[in-house]
Amino acid sequence: MNRRAIGIFDSGLGGLTILKTLCKVLPREKYIYFGDTANTPYGSKSKQAVTRFSLAIARFLESQQVKLIVVACNTASALALTELQKQISVPVIGVIKPGAVKALQTTRNGKVAIIATEATTQSKAYPKELLRLHKNLTITQQACPLFVPLIEEGWIHPQAGEHIIADYLRSVQESGADTIILGCTHYPVIKNKIANCLGPKVCLVDSAEVLAEEVQALLANSHQLNTKGRGTLKIYASDDPLRFKRLAKNILGRPLKQVYLKKLN
Amino acid sequence: MNRRAIGIFDSGLGGLTILKTLCKVLPREKYIYFGDTANTPYGSKSKQAVTRFSLAIARFLESQQVKLIVVACNTASALALTELQKQISVPVIGVIKPGAVKALQTTRNGKVAIIATEATTQSKAYPKELLRLHKNLTITQQACPLFVPLIEEGWIHPQAGEHIIADYLRSVQESGADTIILGCTHYPVIKNKIANCLGPKVCLVDSAEVLAEEVQALLANSHQLNTKGRGTLKIYASDDPLRFKRLAKNILGRPLKQVYLKKLN
Repeated sequence: MNRRAIGIFDSGLGGLTILKTLCKVLPREKYIYFGDTANTPYGSKSKQAVTRFSLAIARFLESQQVKLIVVACNTASALALTELQKQISVPVIGVIKPGAVKALQTTRNGKVAIIATEATTQSKAYPKELLRLHKNLTITQQACPLFVPLIEEGWIHPQAGEHIIADYLRSVQESGADTIILGCTHYPVIKNKIANCLGPKVCLVDSAEVLAEEVQALLANSHQLNTKGRGTLKIYASDDPLRFKRLAKNILGRPLKQVYLKKLN
Repeated sequence: MNRRAIGIFDSGLGGLTILKTLCKVLPREKYIYFGDTANTPYGSKSKQAVTRFSLAIARFLESQQVKLIVVACNTASALALTELQKQISVPVIGVIKPGAVKALQTTRNGKVAIIATEATTQSKAYPKELLRLHKNLTITQQACPLFVPLIEEGWIHPQAGEHIIADYLRSVQESGADTIILGCTHYPVIKNKIANCLGPKVCLVDSAEVLAEEVQALLANSHQLNTKGRGTLKIYASDDPLRFKRLAKNILGRPLKQVYLKKLN
């Protein structure tokens, strides 16, 4: 057993969807969540910038003695995971591989689509991972840059939101994919709206569950699972903790008690 | 005459609308533009963060021997101008005062509305400046956080865009304002769409022209106007220059030759 915390980070709030699942699957663990709201969003930025931001956060989490780091951000997983794994002394797990594994378990016709940020689609991280796991696949990608700002605003323009969903998903529908990877940790918040647009024959997969299983397996195999006591959660944001608290409600569906400010630059 | 350049900066691309007007009014000047694409957007961030980003840029421009700095970003003008003027050795001009002056010249019924980012509206910089210049005014503010991402994406969802414009402008219409300040340097790009929504009786004002006149007067009064030779333009971005070049076309309406990468953190 290892009482140290699990570190988890995202460019901002999206990673809370992953945190939610982790807390459900591993409720006795301690969690330290870092939301990089000073540098958010990552999805429109370069590999160099995202790697620099991610390394600073991972080093902070390392200094907090975490036993493991979860990169709960698709863009950071796509662009910075290799560099993080090189430079950080504890295991670092990203969300791309779990999402790809789940998609392969799900698809029946071998046609998989990924919706994600601009940076994630451009990195081709999902197509590469999918094709590494299985050679015969037809893969479609679609960047959806407005989903994050719409979600963070609380989806207060439902009609406009529907148009935007329909516009983005046109290419996905035309591809005939039966499995769509929600390749951004914000997207599970609008899962039902995306499902309504695509109809019942299409499966939506996100990384959260497979990722939580991977974390559980890794900790179990190394005898580091926390099996006693109550779980805890400490949240840091790199800008305005009050704004983070306010917006977190849109994602978690419940209010947060406290968010601490931690500047990294 | 002073052959040194005019420095101008924005959180990203929006300030190009100001640059365009400056180049028209003062075509013989040299310009150095800095777009902080690594930290964009400013409009959802705190005063502390925006001041830190702005100071780093202003110090870089100072090191380039500029004779004057234009803060071509409403959020940075609203949150960081005082600090910049304290710490920077050359004159620093923001966009809030010129916008307020223009609005006062325009309004007939004394009802003025401001549409801007969340940070700009929360700072109350426009209401404070307007009330400083004229006591009897009715002022309405509306944050429009989706306008920037919609514009940066090239306004490719026209139907959704119309819904969002109508949603945001409802409170502005209800206020009876005859004058609306476009309180974000991105918004002039969709000026016609906003005007279509509000109808012909409402005037839209932006800071660009009054600001250019202020720059001209300041340089003329201090005998620093560049009266000979051809103007030049050098553009820096703090992240991915190619992306900046690609998106700048949506704002400038013409392609840029070269954008240089300059990291500041």
